[in-house]
Amino acid sequence: MNPLLSALAGDAEIDALLSDDAQLTAMLAVEAALAEASVDCGWIEEGAALAIKSAIAAFVPDRAALAAGMAQDGVVVPALLRQLRATVAESHRAALHRGATSQDVIDTALMLQLARVFDLYESRLAALLERLDALGTDAGARPLMAHTRMQAALPTSWAAKIESWRAPLQRHLRALGAMRRTLLVVQLGGPVGDRGSFEGHGDAIAAAMARRLDLGLAEPWQATRDPIVALGNLLALISGSLGKLGADVALLAQSEVGALRLEGAGGSSAMAHKANPVNAEILVALARYNAGLSGTLGQAMLHEYERSGAAWTLEWLTLPPMLVTTGASLRLGVRLVEQLHLA
Amino acid sequence: MNPLLSALAGDAEIDALLSDDAQLTAMLAVEAALAEASVDCGWIEEGAALAIKSAIAAFVPDRAALAAGMAQDGVVVPALLRQLRATVAESHRAALHRGATSQDVIDTALMLQLARVFDLYESRLAALLERLDALGTDAGARPLMAHTRMQAALPTSWAAKIESWRAPLQRHLRALGAMRRTLLVVQLGGPVGDRGSFEGHGDAIAAAMARRLDLGLAEPWQATRDPIVALGNLLALISGSLGKLGADVALLAQSEVGALRLEGAGGSSAMAHKANPVNAEILVALARYNAGLSGTLGQAMLHEYERSGAAWTLEWLTLPPMLVTTGASLRLGVRLVEQLHLA
Amino acid sequence: MNPLLSALAGDAEIDALLSDDAQLTAMLAVEAALAEASVDCGWIEEGAALAIKSAIAAFVPDRAALAAGMAQDGVVVPALLRQLRATVAESHRAALHRGATSQDVIDTALMLQLARVFDLYESRLAALLERLDALGTDAGARPLMAHTRMQAALPTSWAAKIESWRAPLQRHLRALGAMRRTLLVVQLGGPVGDRGSFEGHGDAIAAAMARRLDLGLAEPWQATRDPIVALGNLLALISGSLGKLGADVALLAQSEVGALRLEGAGGSSAMAHKANPVNAEILVALARYNAGLSGTLGQAMLHEYERSGAAWTLEWLTLPPMLVTTGASLRLGVRLVEQLHLA
Amino acid sequence: MNPLLSALAGDAEIDALLSDDAQLTAMLAVEAALAEASVDCGWIEEGAALAIKSAIAAFVPDRAALAAGMAQDGVVVPALLRQLRATVAESHRAALHRGATSQDVIDTALMLQLARVFDLYESRLAALLERLDALGTDAGARPLMAHTRMQAALPTSWAAKIESWRAPLQRHLRALGAMRRTLLVVQLGGPVGDRGSFEGHGDAIAAAMARRLDLGLAEPWQATRDPIVALGNLLALISGSLGKLGADVALLAQSEVGALRLEGAGGSSAMAHKANPVNAEILVALARYNAGLSGTLGQAMLHEYERSGAAWTLEWLTLPPMLVTTGASLRLGVRLVEQLHLA
Repeated sequence: MNPLLSALAGDAEIDALLSDDAQLTAMLAVEAALAEASVDCGWIEEGAALAIKSAIAAFVPDRAALAAGMAQDGVVVPALLRQLRATVAESHRAALHRGATSQDVIDTALMLQLARVFDLYESRLAALLERLDALGTDAGARPLMAHTRMQAALPTSWAAKIESWRAPLQRHLRALGAMRRTLLVVQLGGPVGDRGSFEGHGDAIAAAMARRLDLGLAEPWQATRDPIVALGNLLALISGSLGKLGADVALLAQSEVGALRLEGAGGSSAMAHKANPVNAEILVALARYNAGLSGTLGQAMLHEYERSGAAWTLEWLTLPPMLVTTGASLRLGVRLVEQLHLA
Repeated sequence: MNPLLSALAGDAEIDALLSDDAQLTAMLAVEAALAEASVDCGWIEEGAALAIKSAIAAFVPDRAALAAGMAQDGVVVPALLRQLRATVAESHRAALHRGATSQDVIDTALMLQLARVFDLYESRLAALLERLDALGTDAGARPLMAHTRMQAALPTSWAAKIESWRAPLQRHLRALGAMRRTLLVVQLGGPVGDRGSFEGHGDAIAAAMARRLDLGLAEPWQATRDPIVALGNLLALISGSLGKLGADVALLAQSEVGALRLEGAGGSSAMAHKANPVNAEILVALARYNAGLSGTLGQAMLHEYERSGAAWTLEWLTLPPMLVTTGASLRLGVRLVEQLHLA
Repeated sequence: MNPLLSALAGDAEIDALLSDDAQLTAMLAVEAALAEASVDCGWIEEGAALAIKSAIAAFVPDRAALAAGMAQDGVVVPALLRQLRATVAESHRAALHRGATSQDVIDTALMLQLARVFDLYESRLAALLERLDALGTDAGARPLMAHTRMQAALPTSWAAKIESWRAPLQRHLRALGAMRRTLLVVQLGGPVGDRGSFEGHGDAIAAAMARRLDLGLAEPWQATRDPIVALGNLLALISGSLGKLGADVALLAQSEVGALRLEGAGGSSAMAHKANPVNAEILVALARYNAGLSGTLGQAMLHEYERSGAAWTLEWLTLPPMLVTTGASLRLGVRLVEQLHLA
Repeated sequence: MNPLLSALAGDAEIDALLSDDAQLTAMLAVEAALAEASVDCGWIEEGAALAIKSAIAAFVPDRAALAAGMAQDGVVVPALLRQLRATVAESHRAALHRGATSQDVIDTALMLQLARVFDLYESRLAALLERLDALGTDAGARPLMAHTRMQAALPTSWAAKIESWRAPLQRHLRALGAMRRTLLVVQLGGPVGDRGSFEGHGDAIAAAMARRLDLGLAEPWQATRDPIVALGNLLALISGSLGKLGADVALLAQSEVGALRLEGAGGSSAMAHKANPVNAEILVALARYNAGLSGTLGQAMLHEYERSGAAWTLEWLTLPPMLVTTGASLRLGVRLVEQLHLA
C-alpha cells in the first residue's frame, strides 16, 4: 500500500511488526533458539551455539543478496543462511540450522511476530471497549429511532445500539486470547515435516524451543494451515464488526437522519458545507476487503504434498494485508468512536 | 444444485435438514415454544398457548401463498402467520407471535436446524477419524516418498501423512462442539431487537424458550452476525482440510507416482484404461467453493441499522450451500478413505 | 436454492434452461450433430447417423442410473452413453460418440443452453432499458438532491440519476452480444483435446457441428476456460449494476429522505406501518453474492494438465448459480423500476 | 508488499507507475489539462491557465501535509489544492480546479497511469507470445503424454500444449487493446457528477481535456464503476491463464513425470538435490490471489448515491495489488518460459 493510502486506510504500527526487518530479527531469534535448544538436548555442542549466537548478534545482512535469494529459491532462508554461515567459524557451521528446514524458521518467526501483533490488537480492542462503555454511560439512556430494512421502525435506546457494537468486539477479544494458545506455537519438522532429520531429538528440541521463545508446543504443522486460516477468519470478523459500526455511523450521520454528528469530519474539494463520515466509510471498505481476503486465504489450505510453494506464497500474499487491515480497522474504530456526538 | 450434480457433489441428508419443510417445522416449533414460554412468564394465557399449539399441530400450509408472501415481504413469516392465525380462534389470535418479529422466528428456527446438521457432521467426522486411525494402524509403518514444492524430497512414513490428515479434522470436531454453545442460541428481540415489545418479560421469555428448545440463551443478536460468519468459517476449514486430503490423494495416485491406488475409481467415456480419482478431485472443488463462499458470507456482517434485508438475504444465499458443501465433503471424505489402497 | 428462497431471489425461467432435463436434451442434440457432422465428413456412415438419431429421438433416460454414473465417473456422459448405446443396433454402436470425449458433449451442450439464457437476458435488459427510458421521459426533469459520501451535496436532476442506472446496462447488453461470438462456440477435442482421435477429420467435423448447432467455430478449448470465466465476470457486472440501482433505491426510499416511494413495498410481521424496499435489498444481496462467486469461478481457470476434474467441477458449482442470480437480478430490476414513484 | 516478498512475487516497474509520485504527477497533469481546456472553452482566462501551469511546474509537495489531508478528508485532492493554490497569484486562484471535484482529478489521473501500465503489459505479453512461438517451433513436434483428471491419458504433442498456453494470452492482448478505448477515458462531472458546476461548458471542457490528455471521451461515470471492475476481471484472466501455465509446468516438472526440466530452478535450505519449480508455483499463487481480489473488487460496484467513499476506497485497496500481481505474473511468465527445457 502506498504511503498516502496507508495514511488513510493502513497501519504504520502493524507495518513495522511485519516489516522485512522484523521478520529477519524474528528468524534470527529462531535460529538462536534452535541452537540453544539443540544444546539443551545434546544435539549440538555448547561452543557451536555460542558461536552461532555471536554471529547472529553481529549479523548485518546483505539485503540485495537476500532479495535475489528470495527470487531464486522462493524463500529467503537459504540466502540468509549462506550469509550467516560465512560469519561462523567453519567448525561450527554444520550446527547452524542443523536438522531444520526453511519453513521451520519462517513459520516460527511468524508466530513471534504475531504475538506482538496480538498485543497491539488487544490493547486497541480494550481501548475501544472502554470508549464504548463510556459512551453508553453518557448517552445510553437517550432515545434513538431504530431502522429495519432501511426504514424507520420504532424507537429504541442508544444503549441497545452501543451494546450491539460492543458485544461482538468483546467476543473477538476473547477469541484472540484463545488463539494465543492454539495458534502461537512452534513449528519444527525438518525437510519433510516429520522431525526425522533430528534423529530422535526432534520432540525435545521443539519443546525447548517453545519454552525459550515463549510459544506453545505442537506437532509439525507445515502443510496443515487451518490455524493460520482460522486467524484470517478472526481478523475478518474483527474488521467486519467494525465495518458494521462504520455502516451504522454513516447512516445515522446522514444529513436527513441526524442521529449523530461527527467531530472533525472530512472536507470536500468542491463543497465547503460537507461533513463527510470518512472514518466510518473506511471501516466499511476495510471490512469488505478483509472479508474477501479471508476467502482467498482459505484457498491456501490446499497444500500439495508435504509443502506447497504455491499455497504458502498465497498465504504470504493475503495474511499480511489482512493483519494490517485489521489493525487499521481498530485504529479507525477508536478514532471514530471518539468523534461521535450523539443527538 | 441440480439432482445430477448433487449426486456427485451434494448431500441429500443435509438438503433434507435445510429444506423448506424442515424450516417450516422448525419455525412452527419456535412459535409453539414462544407461546409456552409466554405462558410461563404470564405474558399470554394458557388457553391461548393451547389454542396456538393445536393450530400448529393441525397446520397445513398453502405453499403457493407462502412463496408469494416470501416474494412480497422478503421473509416468509408474515404470510405464514396470516395462514396460521386464520386457524386460531379469534380471541387467541393476538397471543400468537406476541411481541416477536419475523427474525426471531427465522433465526431461532435456523438454530434448531443447525443442531441436527451438527449431529450429522459430528458423526461423519467421527467415522472419518476412525477410518484414518484404522488406516494408520494398518499401513502407517510403510515408507512414503515425501514431496515438497512438487518435487520428490526424502522418505517419510505413511503414519506422518495420515496424521497430517487426521489432526485438523480432530480440531474441527472440537470446534463444532464448542460452537454448539456459542452459536446455537435463541434469538428473541422483537421488532427492533431490544425486547421492548415484550414489556419487561423479554428476558424471561427468552430464557424459557431456550430451555424448551434446548438452545443456549443469548442477548438479541439480530444484526450482529459474527457467530453465523464464524460458523461459515469453520465450515470452510472442514472442507478445506478435506480438500487438502483430496489434493494429496490425487497427487499420490498419479500414474507416474503410484503411491496409492483407488478402489472403484471413475471411468472415462473415451479411455477405458483410466482410473480417475474422482472423489479426490471433488473434495478439491468443494474446498475451493466453500472457501470462496466464506469470503462472501463475510460481506453479510455489514447489516445496516437494526436489520438489513440485503445482508440477511446474502446470508441465506451463502450459508445453505456452505452447509451442503461441508456435508458433501465429509460424505466423500469417508468414501475416499475407504477407497485407498496404500502402496 | 429452496423453492421459498427461489420465489424471492431465484429465477424459475433460468432454472428451467439449466435443469438436468435441459442439459440432457442439449447433450443429445450434440451427439446427434456429431453423428451428422461425421457423416458430412465421411467419418461415419449415413445409416449409422440415422440409427443414432432414431435412438436419440426415442431415448428415455434411466435417471437413477445417470445419477449413479455421475457419482461414479464425475461426469454423466459415460452412463448416458451406456444407456443410449444399448438402444442402437450393434453394428452402429461404434459410430455413436466416435472420436469424442465427455467434455466435448458437456461443454458444447452448455453453449446451446447458454444461447437460450442469453436470449432471456437480452430481452429483460431491453425491457429494463425501455422502462428506464420511460421513467426519464416522465420524470427526468424533476430535481433530486444528490448525495456524496452519504451526505446531501447539491441538487441534481432525476435525469442524471436515471442515466447512471441506464448507461452500464446498455454496455452490458452490448457485451452480451459480443460474447455470443466469442463464447458460444463448439468444443471438439477428443480425449486429450487435440482432435487426434478424429484421424484428420476433426477440424471438418467441428466446423460441420458448429454450423448444424448454430454455434461459432473454435479450436479445442477444454482446459483454457478464460471465456467461461469472462462470462462469469460479465454476469457479475450485470448484477453489480443492478445492485447499485438497488442500493440507490433503498437509500432514496428511506423514511427520512423520501425521494421516491415504492408501489407495493414489503410488509412486516410486527410493524404494520413499514414499507420495506424488499426488491431493492435483494438486488444488493444478489450483486454481492455474484461478485463473490465470480472470484471463486476465477479459481477454476487453473486446470491441471489437459483436463482437471477439480477445476471443472468448481465451474459447475459456481457458474449455474451465477446464471440464476443474474436472471433474478434482471427479473427484480424490471419489477423494481415498475414500482418506482419519484417524488 | 514488503521488499523481500516483492522480489519474488511483486513488480517494481508497476510499483513505480502506481506510486504516490506517479499519481501526484498525473493529478497535476489533469489540473493543467483542465485549466487549458477551460481556456479553450472560454471558461477561464488564458492568464489564469498560464499561472496554474507555472505553479504546477514549480510545485514541490509537502508530503506530510498531503498524508494528513488524505487521512482527514479521505481523498488527497483538497490538501493538494490547498498547497498548490497557495503558490498561485490570488487573482488566478479561483480558476484552479474550477468546476471540478476531487474525483474528476483522481479518476482521470488513474487513466493516465493505467495507459502506461497497459504499455508494459502489452510489451510483456508480446514477449511471452514470441517465446512461446519460438518454443513451439523448436519443440512442438515432440511427443508429450497428455493427462486428464490427474491420470496419464494418451500421447499428444508439445505443440498442442504450447498452443493451449498461447491462445488465451493472445485473447487477453486483444482485450487490453479494446479496453484502451472503453476504459481509458476522461472523468469530468463536478461535485455531483452532472457537469452542472461547469455552467454549460462541461461537455466541451471534457472533450478538450480528453484530447489534451490523449484519453477517450465519456459521460461522467463517477459512481458507475463497471469499466473499472471489468479491468480487474481482465487482470484476473491474464494472471489466471499464466497460473494455468504455472500449474502445468509444476506438474510436468515433477520428479516422477520429468516431461520438462527447469534451468535455474530454486534451491532448498535442507535438501541440496531439490530443483524447485519456484516461478511456476508463484504463478499459481498469483492467479489465485488475483481471482480472489477480482471478486472483492466487484463488491465496489455498489456505490451509494452519487459517490461512495466506502466503495471507492475498496477500489483503491484492491485494484493496485491486482495491477501489480498481473505485472508480476507476466514478468514471471516470461522468465518461466525461458527456463523450460522440454524432454
